[in-house]
Amino acid sequence: MINLHPIGVLRTPFVTLADCPRNTRQLKPAPVCRAVVDAEFVPGLAGLEGFSHLILVYWLHQAGPVSLRFKPPFDDQERGVFATRAPRRPNPIGLAVVVFDGFDGAHTLKLRYLDCLDGTPLLDIKPYLPTTDAEPDATMGWLAPHATR
Amino acid sequence: MINLHPIGVLRTPFVTLADCPRNTRQLKPAPVCRAVVDAEFVPGLAGLEGFSHLILVYWLHQAGPVSLRFKPPFDDQERGVFATRAPRRPNPIGLAVVVFDGFDGAHTLKLRYLDCLDGTPLLDIKPYLPTTDAEPDATMGWLAPHATR
Repeated sequence: MINLHPIGVLRTPFVTLADCPRNTRQLKPAPVCRAVVDAEFVPGLAGLEGFSHLILVYWLHQAGPVSLRFKPPFDDQERGVFATRAPRRPNPIGLAVVVFDGFDGAHTLKLRYLDCLDGTPLLDIKPYLPTTDAEPDATMGWLAPHATR
Repeated sequence: MINLHPIGVLRTPFVTLADCPRNTRQLKPAPVCRAVVDAEFVPGLAGLEGFSHLILVYWLHQAGPVSLRFKPPFDDQERGVFATRAPRRPNPIGLAVVVFDGFDGAHTLKLRYLDCLDGTPLLDIKPYLPTTDAEPDATMGWLAPHATR
């Protein structure tokens, strides 16, 4: 068993699961979101300036019971949960690649392209590295016909 | 407190931390790695065919004590851990964007571009979606002069 503890909280305009967009890059303008980091972890933020994008890792705290197989709402057959980004995973860890719009005080990061619930517990912040994280030509399997960008 | 449990294990050629490459995309040819998924979670793998890339989320089980600020080996000043991909994080969760080379039996995924230790506990598998995960023009802050691809 592995124990985690939040390092802060995510603030978004999405209050219910129904509010959460399937792809926030479709919302124009993209809503401004925030990551509010607990005081004890603020020293770990030094050096984030100059990264245009970050990867946020968070706890999908309202994911509900695990569902290994299900039919996505926009699809016609069952898929395994590891072939989706749906929240009801064995370990409900979410991640998002977000635009980093700088600090709003020492504790708070301004972000775009979060799609999680307001109040989501934040677990980690990583710099996005195009050298290892960007694969623009990646193929999307069963999701390809449903791509929205 | 949040509890996680491994869904499988990662097999790589990297036996000690010193073996782990800074950027596996530099290794030619890229070593073949594997994710071996526990039997109970195999139903969740249905539908992964056709995704060229995956995001693996794993537990950095040999990360050591948390270090919020430190001097990276190839840098001349202290950085906050959240501005690095170093393992000694408050929640030592690792992630990697990997090439998915298909299945080797029902339980085992063939992968390239993992850089973690052999035996690393696997927590999650997500499909890589270029529509939300690829930002090839992202800027790299203090890491820019050290970029290796």
